[in-house]
Amino acid sequence: MTSLPDCDTLALDQQGTALHLTLNRPDARNAMSLAMVREMAAVFEAIADDAAIRCVVLRGAGGHFCAGGDIRDMAAARSQQASGGADPFRDLNRAFGRLIETVNTASQVVIAVLEGAVMGGGFGLACVSDLALARDTAKFAMPETSLGIIPAQIAPFVVERIGLTQARRLALLGLKVNGHEACRLGLVHSVLDSDDALTSALDDAIASLIRCAPQATAATKALLHRVGHEPMPSLLDDAAQQFADAVRGEEGAEGTMAFMQKRPPAWAKTDDTP
Amino acid sequence: MTSLPDCDTLALDQQGTALHLTLNRPDARNAMSLAMVREMAAVFEAIADDAAIRCVVLRGAGGHFCAGGDIRDMAAARSQQASGGADPFRDLNRAFGRLIETVNTASQVVIAVLEGAVMGGGFGLACVSDLALARDTAKFAMPETSLGIIPAQIAPFVVERIGLTQARRLALLGLKVNGHEACRLGLVHSVLDSDDALTSALDDAIASLIRCAPQATAATKALLHRVGHEPMPSLLDDAAQQFADAVRGEEGAEGTMAFMQKRPPAWAKTDDTP
Amino acid sequence: MTSLPDCDTLALDQQGTALHLTLNRPDARNAMSLAMVREMAAVFEAIADDAAIRCVVLRGAGGHFCAGGDIRDMAAARSQQASGGADPFRDLNRAFGRLIETVNTASQVVIAVLEGAVMGGGFGLACVSDLALARDTAKFAMPETSLGIIPAQIAPFVVERIGLTQARRLALLGLKVNGHEACRLGLVHSVLDSDDALTSALDDAIASLIRCAPQATAATKALLHRVGHEPMPSLLDDAAQQFADAVRGEEGAEGTMAFMQKRPPAWAKTDDTP
Repeated sequence: MTSLPDCDTLALDQQGTALHLTLNRPDARNAMSLAMVREMAAVFEAIADDAAIRCVVLRGAGGHFCAGGDIRDMAAARSQQASGGADPFRDLNRAFGRLIETVNTASQVVIAVLEGAVMGGGFGLACVSDLALARDTAKFAMPETSLGIIPAQIAPFVVERIGLTQARRLALLGLKVNGHEACRLGLVHSVLDSDDALTSALDDAIASLIRCAPQATAATKALLHRVGHEPMPSLLDDAAQQFADAVRGEEGAEGTMAFMQKRPPAWAKTDDTP
Repeated sequence: MTSLPDCDTLALDQQGTALHLTLNRPDARNAMSLAMVREMAAVFEAIADDAAIRCVVLRGAGGHFCAGGDIRDMAAARSQQASGGADPFRDLNRAFGRLIETVNTASQVVIAVLEGAVMGGGFGLACVSDLALARDTAKFAMPETSLGIIPAQIAPFVVERIGLTQARRLALLGLKVNGHEACRLGLVHSVLDSDDALTSALDDAIASLIRCAPQATAATKALLHRVGHEPMPSLLDDAAQQFADAVRGEEGAEGTMAFMQKRPPAWAKTDDTP
Repeated sequence: MTSLPDCDTLALDQQGTALHLTLNRPDARNAMSLAMVREMAAVFEAIADDAAIRCVVLRGAGGHFCAGGDIRDMAAARSQQASGGADPFRDLNRAFGRLIETVNTASQVVIAVLEGAVMGGGFGLACVSDLALARDTAKFAMPETSLGIIPAQIAPFVVERIGLTQARRLALLGLKVNGHEACRLGLVHSVLDSDDALTSALDDAIASLIRCAPQATAATKALLHRVGHEPMPSLLDDAAQQFADAVRGEEGAEGTMAFMQKRPPAWAKTDDTP
């Protein structure tokens, strides 16, 4: 098992193939501090090559996902002098954006469980999950412009998530939307109207996920991220080679064998499987 | 206050921070003539740097938004000889496309109020608004191919608005859809089933908008338009610098101060604010 | 009339301006064999310049659209040696991807009628139709990763069809969705709850289509496919020239004349038109 970094701002709990990563500053509605950004980045780095962890479940402690950036870090940056090439505000902001990029392309499947405030940086993080499950009562917003600043590392991922048409309305009017509206806009995949329903949906998702081969899933995720960033014909050429490699690989052999023998493949075995 | 150009085809009315721009050829269902294209372009050019105008409300006089291109301009173009590099049909068409590009990237927030016919050029204009509010009874269509021509300056913006999947069905079958279907397809943001509801939705939008800082809103809009047109990492680098500049700027200082003092920021003051 | 290729795996039936192309291996739930890929590609090549064929209706025989790739072809590829630059798995996979590209950009309007299994390759084919009509009971899925392989030629078109946000959930969790969910995700355009309703929707679509000029429709389809792949200003410059050419062409003249004479244009005449 991978050794996970010690964390002050996160609670980590590995259950089977799922790593539950909980933003754990409930008194601050899990506002994204620089320490939290660094700890999350360290966790994703530590597990990058760990095939035993199939998914990461992102959640907030205390009923809120994440209320945005941390005001104290902003105040600290204000008191620092920009010196040489460094600019504390710019670097603070960019560090968060790099975390978003890391989560977006993590080899694991990332599931976001969204409750309460999903604001600013929390909104950005929700936008890069592979599966987003929201409570109906969750509140999503980019409040930056009402404070005279801009959702610099967030708005670009909102455009990638829900398209320019919906992003421009949300970002420019500073609107707050609930879980149902977030689902209608394509920001989240499912909206659940009770905590029990949310738990069930999460369990179902993890059960679906483990029926899919780990390396094939990671290769598929990487492929999806390339679409629109390079010409389609050469992307498909490369994908065909990956297909051939997958068929000849260990997972391809096991998958085919299991299918013919009408049994679950090796990767789909859980503690409950006899 | 900015001096606005004299217009024959448009009615202009500035109310507070909103410029109401009404297509005003009701006898022709506000068909988009070359004169109208030129006057709209001149208006957007005149207000480009006017921070006192926060939004432009596009609407049509007489119950229709815009029925498409003007047949008389087409007939006039037909009677002209193409000479040198000029081609009257091409130039007429391209001038409209340039207007669409201008409206799309205007520094103000553009709100379209869509009633009656939203056809051809009117459909294109609707596709570049930041907020589109439609009556349920509005009729949206690209009728060009049924006339043997093509929606040349319109169809590309329809793809950007609702994606290739929905655009190909609408454009290739020449379908007419109402406000509800337009909302389901993501062409408009809200559909309202009475004139009163439409007026309320417009008032609410303007009220939301003035709570957001003007320069921060314009910077955010410009940022949204860059997504997908340049590599994400360098876009985020640049956005981080913009974030730092915004925090240090006048709006950032006022926004932070107002937040701590629990008062509305200076930009959010209206005539109704005590 | 174009001479169509002889086909073992497809049934072809031209009715007026519509070519009905039926995947015809019902015992294998129309699994996409290499022979079927080659025959479909040959049909689309044969009709590429045939203006008398306005649309191609893709459907499966026996109540299923297409259950995916053919297992026997996979077995045959496994028994072949990769020699020189050839790799039988890669080439089999890529040949299917080339077919998808061909169908995507066919000059005709492509209508997919989706019933029963729409899996793997069938899912990919559905994603490149101009109009997709689905029965509520249809089942859509990319089951590849559960077999240890990857949806290499399919997943990229799923991203183009429904966007990264929805594609990553479907592909990475290997989910199966029905017609209603497929419509909500934007994978298909309409969901019909009976065979009669499906037939009516198909008839309506063909009736809409023939009111649109053939060359103008093909030019519009080609234009839509360019959006996002080249800079908008030069795309619009080129589109303006195409507009001018269309106005001056035969269809533009006939369309304008028919409009003024309040009669249907020549291309809209059917056997039923007096």
